[in-house]
Amino acid sequence: SNMIKVAVVGGEGIGPEVTDQSHRILKWFSARRGIPVALREAQYGLIPYLATGKVLPDDTVEAMEEADAILWGATGGPETTEVPPAARKAGSLLSLRSKYDLYANLRPIVANPALADSAPLKAAVLKDVDFIIIRELTSGIYFGEPRGIETLPDGQRRGFNTQQYTTSQIRRVARTAFELARTRKGRVCSVDKANVLETSVLWREEVTALHEAEFSDVELTHLYVDNAAMQIVRAPSQFDVMVTCNIFGDILSDCAAMASGSLGMLPSVSLGPPDRLGRRKALYEPVHGSAPDIAGKGIANPLGSILSVAMMLRITLNRPDDAMLLEKAVDTALAAGARTADIAEPGAKRLSTQEMGDAVLNAL
Amino acid sequence: SNMIKVAVVGGEGIGPEVTDQSHRILKWFSARRGIPVALREAQYGLIPYLATGKVLPDDTVEAMEEADAILWGATGGPETTEVPPAARKAGSLLSLRSKYDLYANLRPIVANPALADSAPLKAAVLKDVDFIIIRELTSGIYFGEPRGIETLPDGQRRGFNTQQYTTSQIRRVARTAFELARTRKGRVCSVDKANVLETSVLWREEVTALHEAEFSDVELTHLYVDNAAMQIVRAPSQFDVMVTCNIFGDILSDCAAMASGSLGMLPSVSLGPPDRLGRRKALYEPVHGSAPDIAGKGIANPLGSILSVAMMLRITLNRPDDAMLLEKAVDTALAAGARTADIAEPGAKRLSTQEMGDAVLNAL
Ligand SMILES: CC(C)[C@H](C(=O)O)[C@@H](O)C(=O)O
Ligand SMILES: CC(C)[C@H](C(=O)O)[C@@H](O)C(=O)O
Repeated sequence: SNMIKVAVVGGEGIGPEVTDQSHRILKWFSARRGIPVALREAQYGLIPYLATGKVLPDDTVEAMEEADAILWGATGGPETTEVPPAARKAGSLLSLRSKYDLYANLRPIVANPALADSAPLKAAVLKDVDFIIIRELTSGIYFGEPRGIETLPDGQRRGFNTQQYTTSQIRRVARTAFELARTRKGRVCSVDKANVLETSVLWREEVTALHEAEFSDVELTHLYVDNAAMQIVRAPSQFDVMVTCNIFGDILSDCAAMASGSLGMLPSVSLGPPDRLGRRKALYEPVHGSAPDIAGKGIANPLGSILSVAMMLRITLNRPDDAMLLEKAVDTALAAGARTADIAEPGAKRLSTQEMGDAVLNAL
Repeated sequence: SNMIKVAVVGGEGIGPEVTDQSHRILKWFSARRGIPVALREAQYGLIPYLATGKVLPDDTVEAMEEADAILWGATGGPETTEVPPAARKAGSLLSLRSKYDLYANLRPIVANPALADSAPLKAAVLKDVDFIIIRELTSGIYFGEPRGIETLPDGQRRGFNTQQYTTSQIRRVARTAFELARTRKGRVCSVDKANVLETSVLWREEVTALHEAEFSDVELTHLYVDNAAMQIVRAPSQFDVMVTCNIFGDILSDCAAMASGSLGMLPSVSLGPPDRLGRRKALYEPVHGSAPDIAGKGIANPLGSILSVAMMLRITLNRPDDAMLLEKAVDTALAAGARTADIAEPGAKRLSTQEMGDAVLNAL
């Protein structure tokens, strides 16, 4: 069929609350802008665990399996203590990334001008920040073997993990970066620690080789990861597309998230390999986690999830104009003063999660 | 003898320029405050390489070997291309850290109030920031074996490194952190990635065990490294002492350096194991590197090196009052408007490296 299949999985913590709002927005686009999507809701976490013994029950697996795109909320939080670690692991985010080979994690870091003078974090909000971090998501030290904790002959213990990358693992994520740069400002910054690590030496060589062979029209620079962390804080507007390995991407994207002013507003997508038609399985998710401290209160910021829908419109649904329409609606709502608690100046009116969803819908 | 031996090694890039100023300051303390130090100057880098074939000539090795403390400038920069990698490696900072077992790298992150309203980075300068990052410096993925790049049967290449920690490697650096916290606000935050890495699981267990056994008077918290990067940017004043592994410390300390407002002002020390009297071999060095773009111009900020002397006064020379005297002199100079180019507001007078040294000496 021509229907594009989307699984909607709110998950745990504030995940369901924020996903309710992005789900409404997605339905608006489907109905009003004639986008042929088949939405299927599915559960994840403690509730299905109590009913079926699995955090990721068969129905959810099926929904995710057949989906072109997954709209994901969040996982983790206090519920985790009620689910035994083994059951938790069987359906973890890490195992899903691996299962669907979602090797390219894209995190746009955009500082919204409407927030520059008002966010609690205004000191850190800089205008003109607009870059994307591409984090390799299915290899590196997260998955490398051997790994473990052993007891040494002298009774001490030793923990060990393996950081590793192969030619193809490096090249495919670098390709995603170069291709994306061509649709933006044409610049890729590759981040490694090639002055210390062999994995980084290989990373740099392979990125450079791919660049020379196929992407010499794109500007390529290299930074050491310590310097990259510093530059992200010091002058984030210098970047266009940054590409790095799994663990460095984990750290740098959270560091950059703060530089943008509010974690609650940041979307992300994790992409699998392209099929013959160039379509890639995609998991869209706000960067913020399950935020157990505010879960269930209806005050979480849904914009990270809503802007993830904008990414879905652009990438999976191939509707760049609709993506821009949604991004503009978010800008309009913010410019008109719509603020959830996390981005509200002291004393200002704070919208609920639902009201922020309304504000965006009204601006559409 | 009762003389404390200090090797002064300016090194490369701006290293010699800034070390000239901290050296003057150290001599002032020696002469005026009666501190029994024997200062021995030694060279490092391209100049000795051209004369002897070694970046670290025998004379310098001897000076560093016999020293209680080393006042180090910087290494690296364009000179590096004139020294073959093998010769460079033989005397590298990594090999020195390993040779002298300098396992605890302390980096104070202090935002100077005088800069809060004037630094080019004022957006990022926050008052009340005063913490120390302790980075494990001689183990982890920097030194772990096996490591290398291999060619696979299918012609692809694979790069690999080993992250590893043993009980004793973790406990000794954690001990440094707990002991330091007792002299400060009594709080240690240990940073790891225990939700993914076995090395981090062991790290957390060993830190916790040492805490329970000997330091339960100190408050201990744990953060995942991605969250720590975020918190350092978002709210750095929450921290007192942070302790983490080699690679995480490398990234977080540079991230934090920026949060403090100016890299040029930050000191550091790397400490070896205590001897029977509790004395530890120490290498003091500004956090900034060789800064080849401004080397030789006489405009570098010497305060990172000068404040490293303050750390030397406190730690190796056991003169806390003199350390405070020097830190106050730096504050006084800054409060009176002394600024090198890196911390000057646009249009303001910029002092040379030498003039900044004068300003601090005058304030003493
Ligand atoms: C929860 C954790 C395993 C995960 C990661 O490190 O990848 C998270 O930090 C993220 O960035 O999505
Ligand atoms: C030059 C490099 C090997 C070094 C490191 O990574 O340790 C540097 O970044 C530092 O932090 O001292």
